[in-house]
Amino acid sequence: QLRKAADSVSSWFVVSLVGVGIGLNAAIMSIVSEWLSDLKMGYCSDAWWLSQQFCCWEMEGEEVDGCDSWNTWSSVTLVRWIVFILYATACSFVASHLVRSLAKYAAGSGISEIKCILAGFVMQGFLGFSTFFIKTMTLPLVIASGLSVGKEGPFVHVACSIGTVVAGFFETYRRSQSKMREIITAASAAGVAVAFGSPIGGVLFSIEEMSHTFSIKTMWRSFFCALVATFTLSAMNPFRTGKLVMFQVTYDRDWHFFEIFFFIILGVFGGLYGAFMVKFNLQVAAFRRKHLANHGVAEAVTLAILTATVGYFNRFLRIDMTSSMAILFKECEGGGNIHNLCQTERQWQIVNSLLLATIIRSGFAVITYGCKVPGGIFIPSMAVGATFGRMLGIMVKAMYTAYPTSGIFKVCAPDIPCITPGTYAFLGAAAALSGVMRITVTVVVVMFELTGALTYILPTMIVLLVTKAVGDFLGTNGIADEMIRFNGFPFLEKEDHPYNVTVASVMKKELHTLTETGMSVKDIETILSNTDVKGFPIVSADGALTLVGYIERSELRYVIERARKTRGRINALPCLFTAHGDDDLDLPRDPGEGEEDNPEQYFAPTTAGELQFTPWVNKTPMTATPELPLEIVMQMFKRMGPRVILVEEHGVLCGLVTIKDVLRYIATEKPGHRPSWDERGGL
Amino acid sequence: QLRKAADSVSSWFVVSLVGVGIGLNAAIMSIVSEWLSDLKMGYCSDAWWLSQQFCCWEMEGEEVDGCDSWNTWSSVTLVRWIVFILYATACSFVASHLVRSLAKYAAGSGISEIKCILAGFVMQGFLGFSTFFIKTMTLPLVIASGLSVGKEGPFVHVACSIGTVVAGFFETYRRSQSKMREIITAASAAGVAVAFGSPIGGVLFSIEEMSHTFSIKTMWRSFFCALVATFTLSAMNPFRTGKLVMFQVTYDRDWHFFEIFFFIILGVFGGLYGAFMVKFNLQVAAFRRKHLANHGVAEAVTLAILTATVGYFNRFLRIDMTSSMAILFKECEGGGNIHNLCQTERQWQIVNSLLLATIIRSGFAVITYGCKVPGGIFIPSMAVGATFGRMLGIMVKAMYTAYPTSGIFKVCAPDIPCITPGTYAFLGAAAALSGVMRITVTVVVVMFELTGALTYILPTMIVLLVTKAVGDFLGTNGIADEMIRFNGFPFLEKEDHPYNVTVASVMKKELHTLTETGMSVKDIETILSNTDVKGFPIVSADGALTLVGYIERSELRYVIERARKTRGRINALPCLFTAHGDDDLDLPRDPGEGEEDNPEQYFAPTTAGELQFTPWVNKTPMTATPELPLEIVMQMFKRMGPRVILVEEHGVLCGLVTIKDVLRYIATEKPGHRPSWDERGGL
Repeated sequence: QLRKAADSVSSWFVVSLVGVGIGLNAAIMSIVSEWLSDLKMGYCSDAWWLSQQFCCWEMEGEEVDGCDSWNTWSSVTLVRWIVFILYATACSFVASHLVRSLAKYAAGSGISEIKCILAGFVMQGFLGFSTFFIKTMTLPLVIASGLSVGKEGPFVHVACSIGTVVAGFFETYRRSQSKMREIITAASAAGVAVAFGSPIGGVLFSIEEMSHTFSIKTMWRSFFCALVATFTLSAMNPFRTGKLVMFQVTYDRDWHFFEIFFFIILGVFGGLYGAFMVKFNLQVAAFRRKHLANHGVAEAVTLAILTATVGYFNRFLRIDMTSSMAILFKECEGGGNIHNLCQTERQWQIVNSLLLATIIRSGFAVITYGCKVPGGIFIPSMAVGATFGRMLGIMVKAMYTAYPTSGIFKVCAPDIPCITPGTYAFLGAAAALSGVMRITVTVVVVMFELTGALTYILPTMIVLLVTKAVGDFLGTNGIADEMIRFNGFPFLEKEDHPYNVTVASVMKKELHTLTETGMSVKDIETILSNTDVKGFPIVSADGALTLVGYIERSELRYVIERARKTRGRINALPCLFTAHGDDDLDLPRDPGEGEEDNPEQYFAPTTAGELQFTPWVNKTPMTATPELPLEIVMQMFKRMGPRVILVEEHGVLCGLVTIKDVLRYIATEKPGHRPSWDERGGL
Repeated sequence: QLRKAADSVSSWFVVSLVGVGIGLNAAIMSIVSEWLSDLKMGYCSDAWWLSQQFCCWEMEGEEVDGCDSWNTWSSVTLVRWIVFILYATACSFVASHLVRSLAKYAAGSGISEIKCILAGFVMQGFLGFSTFFIKTMTLPLVIASGLSVGKEGPFVHVACSIGTVVAGFFETYRRSQSKMREIITAASAAGVAVAFGSPIGGVLFSIEEMSHTFSIKTMWRSFFCALVATFTLSAMNPFRTGKLVMFQVTYDRDWHFFEIFFFIILGVFGGLYGAFMVKFNLQVAAFRRKHLANHGVAEAVTLAILTATVGYFNRFLRIDMTSSMAILFKECEGGGNIHNLCQTERQWQIVNSLLLATIIRSGFAVITYGCKVPGGIFIPSMAVGATFGRMLGIMVKAMYTAYPTSGIFKVCAPDIPCITPGTYAFLGAAAALSGVMRITVTVVVVMFELTGALTYILPTMIVLLVTKAVGDFLGTNGIADEMIRFNGFPFLEKEDHPYNVTVASVMKKELHTLTETGMSVKDIETILSNTDVKGFPIVSADGALTLVGYIERSELRYVIERARKTRGRINALPCLFTAHGDDDLDLPRDPGEGEEDNPEQYFAPTTAGELQFTPWVNKTPMTATPELPLEIVMQMFKRMGPRVILVEEHGVLCGLVTIKDVLRYIATEKPGHRPSWDERGGL
């Protein structure tokens, strides 16, 4: 009882600790990123460690392009350009080199891999300390290098690493995979929470995208962790503005019904962008795997140079993507006229600029995402959507300015601005994000938590509805899922599709079984060295193949090694896998949990001198009959979470199926089987 | 292919239709409720069909207590009081009488029952048209009668009924229980969405409270349905204020860190209120079942008279709960000084009033919830929390006014109001709601969607955290779950508790089995008439009890009746339950879906003259071994959704377990077994 109470307190404590860690880390990373990014353009003459914002703190307001204390590197454009490129080169080189030499897992966004880990896949070291440390160190460099990748995806990876490292200090979590997964889920929620300043958005992200099974308890833990992390970030107040992220914004005005037409255009754009991004990024990934596998550093540096060279000449590409979004989201009134975004006389020039930025950024995002530096796809997608949205917004506003009293614009009140281009940028960002990730509810909540504008919930929902419809029509999957498939991780999609076959046609039929009695230790060692399967069904000794249990390879090895230590020569010892009516040994085993009473006594010789494996045998493995449809077996894997399902017919073992078998079947037997639009798009 | 596309389009269409229906219904009910409630106090002399708000439309602003066109029933207080009581009596009599005579299922909130329906329990007529119609008709009367029940829970019930009725027009949904359940889930989301003007809150409610299993597809359908419903409501604009619900509010000011101390008090209050409410309401329910079962009308009328008699003399109890909350949530600046809430000189009088309102409302809520009229617990709880919160807020403000520069208040800026009592009311409402329902994330989102105040997310989360901790400590369950248990519905709680027994000690061991061959129709009819079990395991004819399948009672009856119609006298016919190598009959069956190819040919006599049951036999029923721990069997029920799990040992049938068996075991074997604080409170 006391131990239970202690466990309960310790779990609260661990989650709080993880949350605080994530919040602190996010605050520090945000400040460092901003400073490093600003260094690309100039430096603060008062104090070199200040970013442009803090350097020009007193000067807040109208003009972002500098103050007296902020000096650009040179007054000559050419020199500035060269410094810009050199700086990007240096940053990307350092970052990619660090990743390559110290922590390969720190590359990329990490979301796909974490999804697999949460589904039960083991990837040693993916969430370790070195990954955390290197990713934290290199991410600001990557952002500063101007590569078209964002820090939000990696934030989630870093958060999950913090969760694993912190929880790893506690015995309970180190021993239990399932408890560790719960902490990772909570950490992923906190990661999104601090990345977007959106605690509830984080919780929903962990439900909609990350988590494999849903439980209220996990949701509540995510909630708590996200709260603690956001609170810590809010207390740190990294931007000294009271805002949690740079692109948080407030809208005062309402929208008009006729604008829905334009919102639909934004939604369509989001769907198309998502399809484009997923399709071509996969091709780039295939090319990268084939030709660039050993040139990660060179690739990253080349991309950085290219991005810097081209990007310098566009006002929206030159600056950091988060700052760029902060500017694009703003209303024109009250200090929103940065980069002449709101000047009517220059509107077509701006539209031009924004269109170029949209196209170039999309191109760079496609070729950059997945290269060997930390970097996610969230922010580049949102930036692309924001430039497109703002462009559309300015065009609509231009139409309104040209024909203020005609047609659809009649409903506008004459004295207040009718069209707010910032909201178009905002909705465009939501559409592009949803198009790439194929998540909806999370995006609505995140966008809502960025604005707090009650009135913009409905437009956001409408835009995402259109985006989803377009994405379904084009058959786009989320980029994280596509990456999982591309990398061949063993992961079943959440949605079910009909396959019309039974498990009998999928299962492995040649099995390596052990018999409950009559095998010597030497026999078992021979089998262990001749096979590489993860576990062995145990059948009755009478030759009838009656299933009596299942034992994992690792546990066989463990028992044999321990026995060898305590008892010396054991090669000839007979092995015993069942209890033979000895009821004391009937320990019920919970498949998910690695629960283990201290079974030292089993290493001592039994009266018969056998080696006892009984306590390690799972006497109730998950079973299925051969006629069971494949879909139901897949549901069992997804919902019950076993590693293996044994197939038995009337008590007789006839096969074994793992997730890998199912995936292999899906990939080979039905190469062309992709769910049709109706199957997926149907509500 | 074409049929699939049509299906897909029709499912979008059905969900849209359901959403529009729910939105329209909500708008009409809101308007009617408000008018009926206002009639209690007076009438509009310009037009009798106008509520006070619309009657005094031009006079908006400072004073809610009337305008020239709005006349109270009399100038004498005593007469006004008597009219008030008589009106309440009349409304409650009509409502309870209608419910009793026309639609018994319309009583109560309906949330518990819908939870059971979504878990697979069948309750004929609970979501039918008459329930919908009567509940829609009587709910405004109940609200007008002043009973301490809210319209938000019933809104969900009405919404689900609309979903069922609308979907019932379509063949696909009428035939498939699982598709219907998906529509009901979506409708419940839309119901909450329109009840609170909170579309995302609705989606979360359907996940956190209603839905038994979680899938992205269901979430997306809920999202769409909630969007359509909210959009419809927003287009109807029932209050002509652009707000979706009466108590929507906007806060301008930020909170201070020292206020967290007071927020914690609110959280504690929420937890205590929840525990109080759940505990005593169950006792009242037990009393009601025992003594008042046939006096529903009298009970409701008595309660209404009592509530009206006492409530008239408290300014916060006299008015409608939603209006009362709208007033309590307001900031003092800009028209918030209704009922002298903001006058410093009368603050202690107001505190007194609020305290009385809190206590009296809690008492009435406890005795009223569950009586035989439509009515939910959401709004009364929120109203109780709001009065308590406002009281605390006023007290804190009084402290600040008395000692503006001392201690914790030092951080307050001198020129702007430091304490906003309205936010305390708001947070108190959140705490009380969360305390009673034991839901967290949903409440945060709903409250956020009511204010749109980004800055109040963290306080709301902190308050609910405390509420949850207190609730866990006191061992409170959600009132909906307690009602399910009280009513004995077959429903497994979502969370798992360890029981340390195997399924063998829970299963039914005396089974009524059928043999695969060798039984005549008459034998089967004898068994059918001697037993009342829902289905029969089928075993091999050799006496070894080898499990070959499972058939439901209803399908046995169906086959026999059809055969009797087509073939006449069949009593002596032998029955065949397995295919004997006839592979054409190997139809894989999906347990969830009632898929049925037209198997008319089976009624024709086979060559051997047997009656074929084979197509109706589930050849792959869910099975378990007797040693399987009970928790895993419970997980199988919850996650895989079978009606029955057969227990077999090495292919030999030895038992059968249903959800009812599990619940019976939990209730009888371990009467005192309630999960301890550590088990549930542990994160």
